[in-house]
Amino acid sequence: MIWASGWRLASAVSNAGGLGLIGAGSMYPEVLREHILKCQKATKKPFGVNVPMLYPDIDAIINIIIELGVKIVFTSAGNPASWTAHLKKHGITVVHVVSSVKFALKAAQAGVDAVVAEGFEAGGHNGRDETTTLTLIPAVKEAVQIPLIAAGGIASGNSMLAVMVLGADGVQVGSRFVASEEASSHILFKQKVVEAKEGDTQLTLKELAPVRMLKNEFFEEVQNAYKQGATTEELKALLGKARAKRGMFEGDLIQGELEIGQVASIIHDIKPAATIVADMMIEFNLAKKATSLYNFKK
Amino acid sequence: MIWASGWRLASAVSNAGGLGLIGAGSMYPEVLREHILKCQKATKKPFGVNVPMLYPDIDAIINIIIELGVKIVFTSAGNPASWTAHLKKHGITVVHVVSSVKFALKAAQAGVDAVVAEGFEAGGHNGRDETTTLTLIPAVKEAVQIPLIAAGGIASGNSMLAVMVLGADGVQVGSRFVASEEASSHILFKQKVVEAKEGDTQLTLKELAPVRMLKNEFFEEVQNAYKQGATTEELKALLGKARAKRGMFEGDLIQGELEIGQVASIIHDIKPAATIVADMMIEFNLAKKATSLYNFKK
Repeated sequence: MIWASGWRLASAVSNAGGLGLIGAGSMYPEVLREHILKCQKATKKPFGVNVPMLYPDIDAIINIIIELGVKIVFTSAGNPASWTAHLKKHGITVVHVVSSVKFALKAAQAGVDAVVAEGFEAGGHNGRDETTTLTLIPAVKEAVQIPLIAAGGIASGNSMLAVMVLGADGVQVGSRFVASEEASSHILFKQKVVEAKEGDTQLTLKELAPVRMLKNEFFEEVQNAYKQGATTEELKALLGKARAKRGMFEGDLIQGELEIGQVASIIHDIKPAATIVADMMIEFNLAKKATSLYNFKK
Repeated sequence: MIWASGWRLASAVSNAGGLGLIGAGSMYPEVLREHILKCQKATKKPFGVNVPMLYPDIDAIINIIIELGVKIVFTSAGNPASWTAHLKKHGITVVHVVSSVKFALKAAQAGVDAVVAEGFEAGGHNGRDETTTLTLIPAVKEAVQIPLIAAGGIASGNSMLAVMVLGADGVQVGSRFVASEEASSHILFKQKVVEAKEGDTQLTLKELAPVRMLKNEFFEEVQNAYKQGATTEELKALLGKARAKRGMFEGDLIQGELEIGQVASIIHDIKPAATIVADMMIEFNLAKKATSLYNFKK
């Protein structure tokens, strides 16, 4: 959710009854400070910050989070052992994002309070095993005792109920909120998400860090580089710097990196975050009632 | 389900209250005739035959199915327009297997009675779009009006309920029945399925026909061929003939092709087919009851 989830989206989600998250991955420390302060003014409900731990300014980020009294941190892209104890010592609830049972066990051992298990269909950075949400959630549920939040492919109340039936205690929703009014994503990118059809995203750049993105000219250049046997160094050079910002924040749909989940194919409109949350809850409750109609006889 | 689903498994599933399918993909016409006759003796319940339409002896296969009075045919791997009208003229219910909305629409236009929508996590042959079951089912539900059967990643009553919440009217279960007593799969392959962990399967050979298989020495040879820039012809030569039979039927775990879904990682035992069906129904009903406990408040 880099370049999408700033204070506007996070506070709107929290005000609507969800847990809003500020995505620190695209923010310099002082930018994050500003977003946290604005979010605190915009909502009295709890919200959290997602911190990719491989971030160069990670120490400054963590210090700001603690200093400003943020109560919930979602960590990703790194070893959960690095920061969990430190954050928990400051009374912070720590949730770690994983893509496999192996990493879920590692996170539980590191003492996190909950894990987000994210399947292959999710947008952005993703696991190497390509395990889909439908397979991943029951597998993680079987392996760890701590609360389990499902992610990847969830954009409706029905999919929310579906993953809870598989064992999840809650859901993390990304792509659906990119197509929200409050997301800081460029409007051209939001429109591209709404127009996306099946097969329009693909997981690529597995040699660097696997990432799911929309297929555009930049994506095709990456695929051509593969066909010509590009080295990891050449792929890094091709990716360059600020591709994600260029695509998702500046709206360069041709040469930018456009991270979104497969579920974009069934997202058809840009809505206020509060409407997204309310609609999901209506769908969830209807789907829950409908299960009583599922009867089989021999 | 080639080399797994003969008359023993099909009749056991039908006797247990499911709809057993004979997989014709690995059978010469006269072998299929024998399996249908034996299945008719072993069960009075309905059963079906799955027919990959690119099969060389397709005319003979279809004639035998009609001659022997089989009432349900699942077609796959080919154009649903080729045989649907002919089969329906003979009173046969036709279900077509698809991996995308595009092919689901094509199947509906061809007049099939229902579609199986199979996600990326499924074993064996698979779609090019890599759409996972969690994304595919709501998308197909949105697009077609005919009954929708979900496949890929379903091996428990919970996953069965989950995909029905997403819009499926029923489920097709493959991998779980490979690890059944009645499957004709080699015992060494069944044991390998039961031992499989997350990340042990991968979709490969996309240039020929994408297929998900267990990672063994043969799989590694395919990956090495890719690294060396193998042509489609070279890949075909490497695959050779009868790889699937060698692996799944003859039990060559090293050089055979071992087709199975991601969900193998959460299949832990070989059971009679009737126990698999009964256990799924128990899980399904428990999961259904449990949904009444899912309550959220702001």
